[in-house]
Amino acid sequence: MTDAAPDAVRRGRGRPRGVGGSRRDDIVAAATADFAEHGYRGATVRGIAARAGVDPALVHHYFGTKADLFASVLRAPVRPDRDAHEILDGPVDSIGWRLVRHVLTVWDDGETRSDGVQLLRAALSDGATSSMVASFLHAELLEPVAATLEAGDAELRVSLVSSQVLGLLLGRYVLALPALRDATVDDLVARVGPTIQRHLTGDPVEQPLPSTPADR
Amino acid sequence: MTDAAPDAVRRGRGRPRGVGGSRRDDIVAAATADFAEHGYRGATVRGIAARAGVDPALVHHYFGTKADLFASVLRAPVRPDRDAHEILDGPVDSIGWRLVRHVLTVWDDGETRSDGVQLLRAALSDGATSSMVASFLHAELLEPVAATLEAGDAELRVSLVSSQVLGLLLGRYVLALPALRDATVDDLVARVGPTIQRHLTGDPVEQPLPSTPADR
Repeated sequence: MTDAAPDAVRRGRGRPRGVGGSRRDDIVAAATADFAEHGYRGATVRGIAARAGVDPALVHHYFGTKADLFASVLRAPVRPDRDAHEILDGPVDSIGWRLVRHVLTVWDDGETRSDGVQLLRAALSDGATSSMVASFLHAELLEPVAATLEAGDAELRVSLVSSQVLGLLLGRYVLALPALRDATVDDLVARVGPTIQRHLTGDPVEQPLPSTPADR
Repeated sequence: MTDAAPDAVRRGRGRPRGVGGSRRDDIVAAATADFAEHGYRGATVRGIAARAGVDPALVHHYFGTKADLFASVLRAPVRPDRDAHEILDGPVDSIGWRLVRHVLTVWDDGETRSDGVQLLRAALSDGATSSMVASFLHAELLEPVAATLEAGDAELRVSLVSSQVLGLLLGRYVLALPALRDATVDDLVARVGPTIQRHLTGDPVEQPLPSTPADR
C-alpha cells in the first residue's frame, strides 16, 4: 500500500506529453523508480501511475498487471510466474522432468538466452536489484505455487526447485561450464528432472552412516 | 605458455620499488591484467612475474600457486578447489551430505558470507569475469575432481553438483529467498544432500509415463 500521489508529484519534464511512446517511457521510468524505492511488494500500480502523471487505467492498458509491468521494466524474456502454472497442470509425479524440458527449450533459443543472461546478471548484480527480484519471485512464483501444493513445507520445496533451476541456468548459459553447455536437453532432463522431482515430492534423508569403519 | 618478458616490460611507475607491500601490489595488478587478457588457463606465473617486473620465485613466495594467486586477486573467502578433495576423502555414498554441510557451515559464517556474496556477484557480473571464473573452476575443480571419479560422464556429474551448490548459495545468501534463508543447516543437508548425491552417483531417469490417461 502506498499513497497515490496527486498530479503535482509527477516529474516536471519539459517535453510534450500525450504521445503514446512518451507516456510509456514515463510509466517505465516511474515504475523503475517505484520498484527501487518500495520493492516489488510495496510498489503499486496506483503509485506508479501517480508518479508518471497518468491514470492507473493507462498503466494497465499498456502493461497489464503489476507483474507484467515489472517484467517489462526488467526486459525479462521469460515469465516463470506464468510458466509455473502451465507446468503444474499435469501429473504431479513428473513435474520435475516437464519443468527442466520447458526451461531448457525456452533458454536454448538464441534470443531468449542472450536477453536471459543479461537478466540473470542484472538480478544478481547488486543488493537493491537482488532484493527487488527476490521479492517478485517470492510474491508471484514461490508463494502462489506453494499454495497449490499440499505440503506444509511447500515454500521451501519450491525455493529449492528454484535454486536448482537457477544454478542450471547459470552453469549452462552464464558460466557456460563445458559439460553443461554441451549436454543435450534430453540428457539434462533425465539427470536434473529427478532431482527437481525430489525437491518437490521426495522425503528429506539423513546422511547414511558408513557401513564399516574401514569406509571412513 | 607466454613469453616471459624482460624487465623492460615492467610498467614504469614512478614510485620506489623494493618495499614488500608495493611489490605485492604490483604482482596483484599484473595478475589481474594477465588473467583478464589470457584467461585463467592462458595466464602463467612466469608471464605475470615478467609483467610485474619481479622474479617468478617472488610470486610463489607471496602467493603460492597460480590457483592461490587467482583466489587472492578475486579476494575469494572460499577455496572450492581445495575443499573438494577433503570432502571426497570419505565414503562415496555420503559425499552429497558432507558437501552440503561443509558449504553451508562455511558460508553461514558472517564474514565469509559477506565476502562470498561479493565474489558471486563479481563472478557473474560480466562476460569477461564469468569466463575467467569458469575457466578457473573448470581447471582447478571440475576436471581434477572428475578425474578421481570413475564414471565416463564424471565431468557432467561434477558440473551438475556445482550447479546445485551455486543455486543454493545464490538462493540462500544473494537473493535470500525467505524459506531458504531461514532453513536450518540440518534441514538443508537432509534435503539437498540426496540431490547432490543423485547427481554424483545416481542414474539418469526418463520422465515417467502417466499411469492413466485421466492423469493428464
